[in-house]
Amino acid sequence: MAESPRPKRKREEEEEAAGAEPHDGAAVPAFPLAELRLRRVLRESAREKAVFLHGEVPGEAVSPSGEGANAVVILEKTPFQEEKILDLLKKHTKLELQMRNDIYSTYHLYPPPELSEIKTTVVYPATEKHLQKYLRQEVHLIRETWEDYKSITLPFIQSQSFSIQWVYNILEKKAEADRIVHENPDPCDGFVLVPDLKWNQNQLDDLYLIALIHRREVKSLRDLTAEHLPLLRNVLQEGKEAIRKRFGVPASQLRIYLHYQPSYYHLHVHFTALGYDAPGSSVERAHLLADVIDNLAMDSTYYQKRALTFPLRADELLFKKFQEAGRV
Amino acid sequence: MAESPRPKRKREEEEEAAGAEPHDGAAVPAFPLAELRLRRVLRESAREKAVFLHGEVPGEAVSPSGEGANAVVILEKTPFQEEKILDLLKKHTKLELQMRNDIYSTYHLYPPPELSEIKTTVVYPATEKHLQKYLRQEVHLIRETWEDYKSITLPFIQSQSFSIQWVYNILEKKAEADRIVHENPDPCDGFVLVPDLKWNQNQLDDLYLIALIHRREVKSLRDLTAEHLPLLRNVLQEGKEAIRKRFGVPASQLRIYLHYQPSYYHLHVHFTALGYDAPGSSVERAHLLADVIDNLAMDSTYYQKRALTFPLRADELLFKKFQEAGRV
Repeated sequence: MAESPRPKRKREEEEEAAGAEPHDGAAVPAFPLAELRLRRVLRESAREKAVFLHGEVPGEAVSPSGEGANAVVILEKTPFQEEKILDLLKKHTKLELQMRNDIYSTYHLYPPPELSEIKTTVVYPATEKHLQKYLRQEVHLIRETWEDYKSITLPFIQSQSFSIQWVYNILEKKAEADRIVHENPDPCDGFVLVPDLKWNQNQLDDLYLIALIHRREVKSLRDLTAEHLPLLRNVLQEGKEAIRKRFGVPASQLRIYLHYQPSYYHLHVHFTALGYDAPGSSVERAHLLADVIDNLAMDSTYYQKRALTFPLRADELLFKKFQEAGRV
Repeated sequence: MAESPRPKRKREEEEEAAGAEPHDGAAVPAFPLAELRLRRVLRESAREKAVFLHGEVPGEAVSPSGEGANAVVILEKTPFQEEKILDLLKKHTKLELQMRNDIYSTYHLYPPPELSEIKTTVVYPATEKHLQKYLRQEVHLIRETWEDYKSITLPFIQSQSFSIQWVYNILEKKAEADRIVHENPDPCDGFVLVPDLKWNQNQLDDLYLIALIHRREVKSLRDLTAEHLPLLRNVLQEGKEAIRKRFGVPASQLRIYLHYQPSYYHLHVHFTALGYDAPGSSVERAHLLADVIDNLAMDSTYYQKRALTFPLRADELLFKKFQEAGRV
């Protein structure tokens, strides 16, 4: 939910900022995983079978108190591979009956090591910022009135110098030009459709594209009026058509929506595969483009009147602004 | 998404219908998993690390063509257990460096069998109905206008004899009376709040409650008008307050919404933990109660005018009705 839509880009920025040079993997010794001291579980996901750990590497004292150096270790069980399922059924080391009731039974199956890989990601040495990033944060819903928007959210957006140069680079064909799936070049009612960086385009299951509008002054849902209907209808119709042509996915299997709050304040529309439980597609953050169009057609100032709900992490600055205003 | 809100109840009904007596696990031999012939993968979830298989038990010929008996086998990797994480880090059988770049590195870790349990569920013998149940079905979005509702959906609802006796049993205290978390007994504007059967109440992470209204003639969102505002405001305010008192979860950490289409046509409201990615909380099916209230306050006939989007599985009868009407 709190995930960034451009994680790779963020990652690149972090590294650029640190002036880090990527090392060659060959010469570097493996991380001493077996010696790691487990400090705490930062976060876990029972549904996704993943856990985020804060560990300490002993012998690497970096503080006068003798503390070791911090590491973040992420363990994630891997999806089943179809070609290895038969092996799994035949080569299990143990099969324990747990429960049997009529035609239903459950077992504990213990596979050999080569069939139970765990993807392990290490961030080492990790700073306090890395630890914070992976620490489970409380999330709260905000119900933002139009007055809240004007007095809290808008000043916050304006005070931040969010860089959206990467959006302009795409619109101006200075970056990702070869990735453009469709463009309507009209400066007022046009847009560019590109695959989201989260989608590797290897399979359609998690199809994810983004439409970036050419106009530059529309920050979010809150700025939309009936004036933007031709633009929004172009995005909806041409976006569907382009995805059907390029990827063979019919419009009825696309979830097409905007986020509020968005991750960056240049209006964009998400296109994801309906069967894909995309992060940020929950009702508390997503707004179907078809509903947005109908709302604006009914009332041009719909989004300048209505209260809107959205989630914020307790460590986000905007959350603090709402707290200061006594609105949480 | 297509999951039933009362799976246990369904399961009980199935068994009752079959007149099945639960067997005692002790005397029954283990299912011959190693000999299973793999027919096909019915469905898989890369995100949840689960796979649903159609297998055939050889030697159990049940048809003249010599086919074996069918089985459904569900494999699901298990969540990490906090107390076993240290073992996992220390007792891995192999650790392979995959990639290293600056402070980031990734590894393949191969744990010993006792630390990589797979939960295995077997349905055997399985009927064609069981296979269909687990087979991945295409899901399509429907954009239902008010005219579609009157000419397709409403006649469909009326033609079905959906039994909602279990709802009446709760409202009349004939069942689950000890589970009631809160009740407003007003016959017009009152409701009963109960934990959903999916929630075992052992942890708050996946908190899930349902408010069932006392009035019996309100089928869904489509029937709501400004007349229902007092009822809906009671559900919102009293529901929040009761959950805060009983479970200590603040209102800002609750996702409160209706489904359209609902699973049963007696108006009910879902209360789920914000941090829990509950099935059916996506934008294409969920409607925030706070938004519903604002829409009705703005226009009493909002839900008798507006097009509404919802997903349907291709094998659902209502989907066929929309197809016949040329609306898909």
